[in-house]
Amino acid sequence: MRAVWFEGREVKMIDQRRLPHDIAVVGFRDHIEVAEAIRNMTTRGAPSIGAAAAYGMCLAALNKVDANEAARVIKKARPTANDLFYAVDHMLAELKKGAEPIKAADRYAQDIVDKCVRIGEYGASLIKDGDVIMTHCNAGALATVDVGTALAPIRKAWSDGKKIFVYTSETRPRLQGMQLTAWELGQEGIPHAIIADGASGHFMRKGVNMVITGADRIVANGDFANKIGTYEKAVIAKELNIPFYVAAPVSTFDLDTKNGEGIEIEDRCEEEVTMIGGVRIAPSGSKALNPSFDVTPAKYVTGFITEKGILKANEVNRMKIK
Amino acid sequence: MRAVWFEGREVKMIDQRRLPHDIAVVGFRDHIEVAEAIRNMTTRGAPSIGAAAAYGMCLAALNKVDANEAARVIKKARPTANDLFYAVDHMLAELKKGAEPIKAADRYAQDIVDKCVRIGEYGASLIKDGDVIMTHCNAGALATVDVGTALAPIRKAWSDGKKIFVYTSETRPRLQGMQLTAWELGQEGIPHAIIADGASGHFMRKGVNMVITGADRIVANGDFANKIGTYEKAVIAKELNIPFYVAAPVSTFDLDTKNGEGIEIEDRCEEEVTMIGGVRIAPSGSKALNPSFDVTPAKYVTGFITEKGILKANEVNRMKIK
Repeated sequence: MRAVWFEGREVKMIDQRRLPHDIAVVGFRDHIEVAEAIRNMTTRGAPSIGAAAAYGMCLAALNKVDANEAARVIKKARPTANDLFYAVDHMLAELKKGAEPIKAADRYAQDIVDKCVRIGEYGASLIKDGDVIMTHCNAGALATVDVGTALAPIRKAWSDGKKIFVYTSETRPRLQGMQLTAWELGQEGIPHAIIADGASGHFMRKGVNMVITGADRIVANGDFANKIGTYEKAVIAKELNIPFYVAAPVSTFDLDTKNGEGIEIEDRCEEEVTMIGGVRIAPSGSKALNPSFDVTPAKYVTGFITEKGILKANEVNRMKIK
Repeated sequence: MRAVWFEGREVKMIDQRRLPHDIAVVGFRDHIEVAEAIRNMTTRGAPSIGAAAAYGMCLAALNKVDANEAARVIKKARPTANDLFYAVDHMLAELKKGAEPIKAADRYAQDIVDKCVRIGEYGASLIKDGDVIMTHCNAGALATVDVGTALAPIRKAWSDGKKIFVYTSETRPRLQGMQLTAWELGQEGIPHAIIADGASGHFMRKGVNMVITGADRIVANGDFANKIGTYEKAVIAKELNIPFYVAAPVSTFDLDTKNGEGIEIEDRCEEEVTMIGGVRIAPSGSKALNPSFDVTPAKYVTGFITEKGILKANEVNRMKIK
């Protein structure tokens, strides 16, 4: 099973909001439903968002919807992940060239998975037997159709027989680190522990050999956006001389944006913070602010693990050769 | 109403586990019940723990329990907050001198409140009109019988007419920042927003003028223990040149311990992380680690706001003149 796929004229997705307790598959029949599924986080993670968007464009083509109109709707679903715009533009170009919609979208999705496999190989070369690794949010198979970005090197190192241990910070407010990453690690039998987000620094001080996260957008100077809480881990890692790696495929690189100030950060509704399981847990008079991402400056990044190799922040422009 | 007080031969406490939705007062009739109330966090916050411990010693005296035996039981309730040991030793000395138990414990509690008022005055002198302040966990009235440590300067600045804004990080796993600090700020009408713990760095980058936290123990070299997540804020604050202050009374200083490595960090049960409202939210096969505190090295502290003035880390030994 993949995170997103096409079957019987529907885009199918694992409903990631219901994991780890239910593995529910939902289907969508037009690009408007797909855009809503991206918005409400039925699927999430930049590369999976890209695949969903590609399939959304495919549905629009099959349903004879104007491609530019569909592109407009899908691109509006969420503002931060570069893969969303990349995938829609890729499909626009493919459809213009006369590509068969399902084949083009399937190729896009398979291409992500192939890239994740290569990211895994490059990244695993950085991991030593006995390493303790910290990750944040979910940059696993669920986030990337299959295999993962940040989790790809971890999976590969583990399957190569390296004894590793992974800290996954729970990632409030939506708990993807607890509910998705820990679940994926558990499925593979990789030793791990869930920690509160605020405990990351404590455990880094106690001994972490490497921090690996995914990214939602990496811009020309090497600044990048990722799940809220990433910036803090990057600063602490630098303070403690712990290597900090970002794993992402080419579709996450936005070289038209000069630096992190140009990245739009999505603010999600405050109820993601103030309510849990439909019950308000915050005082009635208090408001919450809920930015979904933060921007980490390039200077904190040891390297970007891509399908083309491991780049330093000042080498990001190499990704231009797509 | 105070967080902890003595009335009708009972130690009364606001049950802080039920805030902000219920303001429930619970009563305890012997030192064993009081120790359990400290352990299960009916009351929490280092100075309130100290006051509860003093009243626990008072109950033991009234119940004709051996003072040393009661001291042993109460000191075992939680390991990190210095105030617990300080208060018990203080009461042992007072009882030995023949002090009347209720009067001695009431004096101890009132003394904390008086010190908090002075902390508020010293601390407010650091706050300018228009400042944006970040705090963590709850170092408010609930944590200190009344007034607060970290919240004392904030209250004073506000009541002096300074227009301030406070970010309170929710403080997983037990959410004291969301459920207690936001509630206290709301009661005073102080403008504030709740944020996820991982969003602290993001908002510090956007513009915070000062971070103020409480402490559970401050040792001789200026290292200190406080709620998990404090260390990260201190490192980010230093990185961004934001002043980082720790507000605490003399009872929190442990000058017999040389440095932070000597502080015992309490590990609480993993269910605080993996369950919410009695429902398991983590995958069934995954474990969590749940240290309740972290240690922040002295080099990240701009100053300690005490009832005797504002000290630099290398001036902590001045607190010896108790």
